Amino acid sequence: MRIAQIAPLYEAVPPRLYGGTERIVANLTDALVDLGHDVVLFASADAQTRATLVAVRDQAIRLDPHPLKSDLAAHLSMMHEVRRRAHEFDVIHFHADLIHFPFFEDIARRTVTTLHGRLDMKDLPEAYRRWEQYPLVSISDHQRRPLPLNNWISTIHHGLPPELYRVAAQPEGDYLAFLGRISPEKRPDRAIAIAKRAGLKLKIAAKVDATDRAYFAQVIEPLLSDHSVEFVGEIGDAEKPGFLGNAAALLFPIDWPEPFGLVMIEAMACGTPVVAWRCGAVPEVVDEGVTGFVVSSEEEAAAAVVRAAALNRDVIRRVFERRFAASVMAERYLDVYRRLSDAWELDTPIAAVA
Amino acid sequence: MRIAQIAPLYEAVPPRLYGGTERIVANLTDALVDLGHDVVLFASADAQTRATLVAVRDQAIRLDPHPLKSDLAAHLSMMHEVRRRAHEFDVIHFHADLIHFPFFEDIARRTVTTLHGRLDMKDLPEAYRRWEQYPLVSISDHQRRPLPLNNWISTIHHGLPPELYRVAAQPEGDYLAFLGRISPEKRPDRAIAIAKRAGLKLKIAAKVDATDRAYFAQVIEPLLSDHSVEFVGEIGDAEKPGFLGNAAALLFPIDWPEPFGLVMIEAMACGTPVVAWRCGAVPEVVDEGVTGFVVSSEEEAAAAVVRAAALNRDVIRRVFERRFAASVMAERYLDVYRRLSDAWELDTPIAAVA
Repeated sequence: MRIAQIAPLYEAVPPRLYGGTERIVANLTDALVDLGHDVVLFASADAQTRATLVAVRDQAIRLDPHPLKSDLAAHLSMMHEVRRRAHEFDVIHFHADLIHFPFFEDIARRTVTTLHGRLDMKDLPEAYRRWEQYPLVSISDHQRRPLPLNNWISTIHHGLPPELYRVAAQPEGDYLAFLGRISPEKRPDRAIAIAKRAGLKLKIAAKVDATDRAYFAQVIEPLLSDHSVEFVGEIGDAEKPGFLGNAAALLFPIDWPEPFGLVMIEAMACGTPVVAWRCGAVPEVVDEGVTGFVVSSEEEAAAAVVRAAALNRDVIRRVFERRFAASVMAERYLDVYRRLSDAWELDTPIAAVA
Repeated sequence: MRIAQIAPLYEAVPPRLYGGTERIVANLTDALVDLGHDVVLFASADAQTRATLVAVRDQAIRLDPHPLKSDLAAHLSMMHEVRRRAHEFDVIHFHADLIHFPFFEDIARRTVTTLHGRLDMKDLPEAYRRWEQYPLVSISDHQRRPLPLNNWISTIHHGLPPELYRVAAQPEGDYLAFLGRISPEKRPDRAIAIAKRAGLKLKIAAKVDATDRAYFAQVIEPLLSDHSVEFVGEIGDAEKPGFLGNAAALLFPIDWPEPFGLVMIEAMACGTPVVAWRCGAVPEVVDEGVTGFVVSSEEEAAAAVVRAAALNRDVIRRVFERRFAASVMAERYLDVYRRLSDAWELDTPIAAVA
């Protein structure tokens, strides 16, 4: 198939450091190429891809040092270019929220829109009602709940390239891991409390955004004086297998409706069990008692850490490969593309299929 | 004429406190109604207008306490609604940057877009090149310089309702005034230095945004200990005539390409002379030696303050009424609407007229 992938322009594809959406676009795009498809990626020029790149901006917006820039103008220009070339593709797959809705109304049925963020926001129901013809894909069943009436055609979980991760031969297993971003809704404070209760060391590998610096200084830093907590800062992809693979478990004690939770499957890719809060997509991602445990209190979490030691790391890795490999994600999207394409050729309405 | 005015949704129309664009939309809309036209205003529900209001959001975004909201979705929904009703209007006048560009491509010649912000930003030239068919109005000649190739059909300066301001019967005249926002590019530090040099007291009426709090604490607050500087905080419309009208002059020592500078004409409306830096639109707004002085150094500014005392406040007010009354602005926009409407009926291209 001739497939266009439309990335957001905020981070490079894949991102140099943090950034979930652009990472998934990179994984999906490469996996589709590997499966023999003709893929064109619209993204900023710093993308690294096996597809044909259409560079619509000289670099990603977030790290662009230019003092005056317009993310709105940049995304509008990109959509204008995609529209101009729309006839070249069998399907056009958008990953940048809803900014493309005004452009493709007449060919909405040849498009797929994956929503990557939380949807429980004011202003969204009205906008999604107005453009209800667009076929949407959610990244978890939980994510789509605030917009139940839209044209959801599938839930497709995120996928990662298995070759980037490995199960540690002899995992150290003497610490718990917290990976991601320091912010109130990620609850690093709760991770610290759980580790204390479980009697294990906690290593925190996380970035601190400007908006979260006050929270870090006031709430988290005072807790770091304890010798059982180690703050290692932000880490890159190359360090993740070591950091995650040697942990007794990943703690994911979040306090918000997480639409997916990429770090959980990064841990699984390293064979590391996950102890995660019953929030958002968590129960869909964790196989209870197999790849980890879903908990609702610090007491349950501490008990789960003990039980996690007994889980089989090779099994966790195999479940990851079966459910969350990038190729699995790509095959599921190809099913969606084919379904849309078939319906389009027959000129029949595209039915909503769960 | 049947005229639609499309306001941004960030502030109420007019704003409860600070906010230039929505204030101008309010003034223009009411003035067009007063001139007998059939005007529909698309805005948030907290608008106060003599036109017919189409409320497209329950309240303006900026002060809406809801923790999760999407300004993009809100503006897209509004534009969708305007598009649905476009046939009801002879002309549709947009004030919300370029978010409407994808919606009205086929009827661009029935639209007017006033740009209210600075245009020297990355990403803008590319987007404005792609939608070059839209007739644009600048709020100063200086503002349009970064986008010289677009379809500029007029420069129309801002206007204010004369009845909201008055010349003080016996102006105190023993202080200089600084009004607006505390931020590095507004240069309140320079205002303090000029006042010192001129041997006059300075009163600062300004809001401090969250992003500018560090600048205020580190740069401005230490300068306030001097008894010759008084910080009076943010003031509302009702207090402005008193604050401005009693000042010896308004200081406007900005350090950025100001696209218009509304506070200058607020001062003129009170008969108060303006001493302003040669930046952005300033030389277009100030009539040298009549309504104030345009300067390039603190020395020139201090000398201008002395000379300003000799300017005739009734003349300043009359120049304001002739150049910057809301009704003058409305008449100029009506000229533009008629020109577009004529060209459209004859199906001739709309020529760019300076």
